Amino acid sequence: MNLILLEPNELGKPIPRRDERTIHLLKVLHKKVGDTFDAGVLGGQRGMGCIEKINIEGSIVYSLRLTEDSPPRLPLRVAVGFPRPIQLRRLLRDLSNLGVAAIDLMGTELGEKSYRDTNLLSDGGAKAALIEGAVQSRDTIIPVLSLFPTLEDWLRERPWDKAAACQPPVLVAADNVRPEGAMARLGSIPGPMVLAIGSERGWSDGERDSLENAGFLRLSIGERALRTETACVAAVTLALEKIGELG
Amino acid sequence: MNLILLEPNELGKPIPRRDERTIHLLKVLHKKVGDTFDAGVLGGQRGMGCIEKINIEGSIVYSLRLTEDSPPRLPLRVAVGFPRPIQLRRLLRDLSNLGVAAIDLMGTELGEKSYRDTNLLSDGGAKAALIEGAVQSRDTIIPVLSLFPTLEDWLRERPWDKAAACQPPVLVAADNVRPEGAMARLGSIPGPMVLAIGSERGWSDGERDSLENAGFLRLSIGERALRTETACVAAVTLALEKIGELG
Repeated sequence: MNLILLEPNELGKPIPRRDERTIHLLKVLHKKVGDTFDAGVLGGQRGMGCIEKINIEGSIVYSLRLTEDSPPRLPLRVAVGFPRPIQLRRLLRDLSNLGVAAIDLMGTELGEKSYRDTNLLSDGGAKAALIEGAVQSRDTIIPVLSLFPTLEDWLRERPWDKAAACQPPVLVAADNVRPEGAMARLGSIPGPMVLAIGSERGWSDGERDSLENAGFLRLSIGERALRTETACVAAVTLALEKIGELG
Repeated sequence: MNLILLEPNELGKPIPRRDERTIHLLKVLHKKVGDTFDAGVLGGQRGMGCIEKINIEGSIVYSLRLTEDSPPRLPLRVAVGFPRPIQLRRLLRDLSNLGVAAIDLMGTELGEKSYRDTNLLSDGGAKAALIEGAVQSRDTIIPVLSLFPTLEDWLRERPWDKAAACQPPVLVAADNVRPEGAMARLGSIPGPMVLAIGSERGWSDGERDSLENAGFLRLSIGERALRTETACVAAVTLALEKIGELG
């Protein structure tokens, strides 16, 4: 936990005793009254917190001195076929950690239909995973998460057109089965990118046609079959490199 | 499980009833007597297996018809500071899945000393994780795993000099704190690479000097602090791209 992140509606209240942030401050970092810590407000600024008081029941009273804007999210939108529920949490955390601006979860033809029935989106688990990934890189801003029943719905809605950007994004679909080329061979791209990653079993041929009609390039990320999470991190890393966000 | 992988010393014996391969064949793939499946021998060839008989107690008698060599491991050697034991298994699996040829685990000055005391290496857990990653990409060959007490030991031993190769490898150390440049800016490399990744807290300045003296370039993989496993997958992806193994 590289940053103690507070939600706007929590401000002014002590952090509860059993909260993982309290446990991290007191048990892992061994902070005492008067000690400072890195802090930020979800969607807002970051800076320093100070432990003003530890209440008898164990909650923490703190003050904040926020001085710095969080860096903006990176101009990459990632759409992924619903993974297994057990993978979804880690995937959201990792994509948030890597800095992507928006995550779209969508049903795909070859994806397991039951994977869409996850509680993670209603029970706060998805948000917690996005926050965990953001905090790792001292970020106060989390990716915008959206859901689409099918790839076709996503392509019809074109959510990337609504996101304000100076220039239209380059549209790429990861496809190791019937690629038109390799993502590694893509030159550097001077603007935002939208990256569509299928489900574990990839795209149907109908989906390939739909992606092509919508202007997507189908590119491979190598010849090896990778686990969904590994494939996502690898594809996002290459995408971030191509748009110049890795230095 | 994209391949049923058998160890050489298992050949000729039925696959036991409670073995995860038996469970995968009978419960997940619903295979019956006479059905075929993708099969391979650890360190050897791959091809087709056939279920000849299911014994009364539930074990599987099979025949093999192996016709194809496994693709060689990719010319990338990765050295990682011992991660938390809970992360080590996933890390070994992912690095094996990505195709690296060799994995060196080493102690680092800023790494937690206790992380070295893992049973995973003696109890077969490490090998199981390497196999799990390999099987995902239908590979019969797993990375060579070695252990070094410290980075200094690793640099002294230079295990990459012993691996036969047409040309000496390019030596890169991932360093997001005091990099000499960005890995993304590296041009394409026409040969093997050795990639050193520190522990969670990175390198000490003494280790930076040692790496430099040993001929390592210190390169960043972006400005964001990533989780150990995510950082490893991202760094390995960039390395594989640079050595031309992603297409």
